[in-house]
Amino acid sequence: MRGWIADAPNYQDPVPLGEVMTGFTVGEVAASRHPDYNVGDLVAGRQGWCEWALSDGSDIDRKIRAGRVPLSTHLHVLGINGITAFFGLRDVGEPKAGETVVVSTAAGSVGSLVGQIAKIGGCRTVGLTGDDEKVDHCTRLFSFDAALNYKAHDDLANAVAETCPDGVDVYFDNVGGPISDAVMQHLNLGARIVVCGTMGMGNSPEGPRYNRQILVNRARMQGFLVFDHWDRRQEAIDELEGWLAEGRLAYLEDITNDLENAPATLCRLLAGENRGKTLIRVGKEPGET
Amino acid sequence: MRGWIADAPNYQDPVPLGEVMTGFTVGEVAASRHPDYNVGDLVAGRQGWCEWALSDGSDIDRKIRAGRVPLSTHLHVLGINGITAFFGLRDVGEPKAGETVVVSTAAGSVGSLVGQIAKIGGCRTVGLTGDDEKVDHCTRLFSFDAALNYKAHDDLANAVAETCPDGVDVYFDNVGGPISDAVMQHLNLGARIVVCGTMGMGNSPEGPRYNRQILVNRARMQGFLVFDHWDRRQEAIDELEGWLAEGRLAYLEDITNDLENAPATLCRLLAGENRGKTLIRVGKEPGET
Repeated sequence: MRGWIADAPNYQDPVPLGEVMTGFTVGEVAASRHPDYNVGDLVAGRQGWCEWALSDGSDIDRKIRAGRVPLSTHLHVLGINGITAFFGLRDVGEPKAGETVVVSTAAGSVGSLVGQIAKIGGCRTVGLTGDDEKVDHCTRLFSFDAALNYKAHDDLANAVAETCPDGVDVYFDNVGGPISDAVMQHLNLGARIVVCGTMGMGNSPEGPRYNRQILVNRARMQGFLVFDHWDRRQEAIDELEGWLAEGRLAYLEDITNDLENAPATLCRLLAGENRGKTLIRVGKEPGET
Repeated sequence: MRGWIADAPNYQDPVPLGEVMTGFTVGEVAASRHPDYNVGDLVAGRQGWCEWALSDGSDIDRKIRAGRVPLSTHLHVLGINGITAFFGLRDVGEPKAGETVVVSTAAGSVGSLVGQIAKIGGCRTVGLTGDDEKVDHCTRLFSFDAALNYKAHDDLANAVAETCPDGVDVYFDNVGGPISDAVMQHLNLGARIVVCGTMGMGNSPEGPRYNRQILVNRARMQGFLVFDHWDRRQEAIDELEGWLAEGRLAYLEDITNDLENAPATLCRLLAGENRGKTLIRVGKEPGET
């Protein structure tokens, strides 16, 4: 969302001033003249920040089957976060059992799933996050083998080295910048770096050059955008829903009521103050009276 | 060779002080008790900087068939340079017809072949090199569609933009550092960067971070070392030898006589003063009396 409202080149045009802010939604059909949708259907889509949306169906991604997993999980574990974690890790990271997978923003809604999916795949998982409570979430909730509070280490590169005695095979990078610098020092031969986010680069437009590490280790650094894989999303959703229903994927939610609180909630998220997937509840939930 | 004698992590241990300097050779068998090699056989291998070498066969790469192409080309077009250009471009760069391929050190023994192989594959080729004579070699000898003298442009990024109006799809990077910075600003969606050399980074250990460009364009930056593909070298040699025999691959040679001139010749190469593949002729050539 930070990218969507930035006046800078991105994978899509910025949200125009005065338009509805882009956002993923789960909702209930209140009225319909569309042959595919009936009143009461639950749908996941991209209706944006609004209480009521008019749709011709093109911004609806899929119908949701109620009951198997909580409705809200369609916005994170089974939504953009889970699909990002699934394809980014699998298609770009290509982790193999026994490898070390390092994840930044490891307690976040993407990072926590990357760690758990890698763990299901038999990897050793190491999470980087920004406070001790999140470190605790990483190791206790999200089954990371180890986690580091990057703000608590003067020499983060050394801390990463100690936490990854066998080096780093996959680095799922949600931040870039100085935090990533610490990981890039410890790449193994043939390491893969998934460039999924750059939120940690804000004040660090320049930094160490990694051409030598990439060359010497024949490493691969590749950008990942979930929308390139959007037509295959059902593949990820099916696998994730199975794991979720079996209780193999943990998550945290941070729910705020009412649309008027959305802008402040986004700021809180960007400041790292949220504790779990940040959701806005608008109106009543389906079935609620 | 600069890497081989550096006291820094590399893909192989540094050449120990007092040992024979590593180097690729073409030579003639003068005496043999090895069942696979007879007196008069021509062989390509890694005998290093010496006039006479004793071998158990393990440092011989292959026998050479005399006559189809000049013997010396087995040290460049059909040797490590050609094999590097072939697999680096094809397997990591993955150029498609119509794409723009940019090459640094474009007049060099790897770069000139990368350009010509890309051109054979139907790409538009742009070479970056360090003086006007080499620019001329690029466009007149090595069939680049365009070439830039990077020392002649105050704003190299802008010069690259003007020379690549459709952006950069493949960047075969032999240098890293400020020259590469100019190219990395103009990546297309899905661009591939082949990290093949880092000679241009010497005085630029820090620089712009490219995470955003890599993410937004879903680009891939990958290290390439020819020795990872060494067991498949015959595949490259066969294709290259065919093109060479058909006159489709041009090359320049810069030949110095006598081993005692080798160190100074290496320095000349590192200073960019060579004009073509730098070779040392040791003793007589086969057939010479």
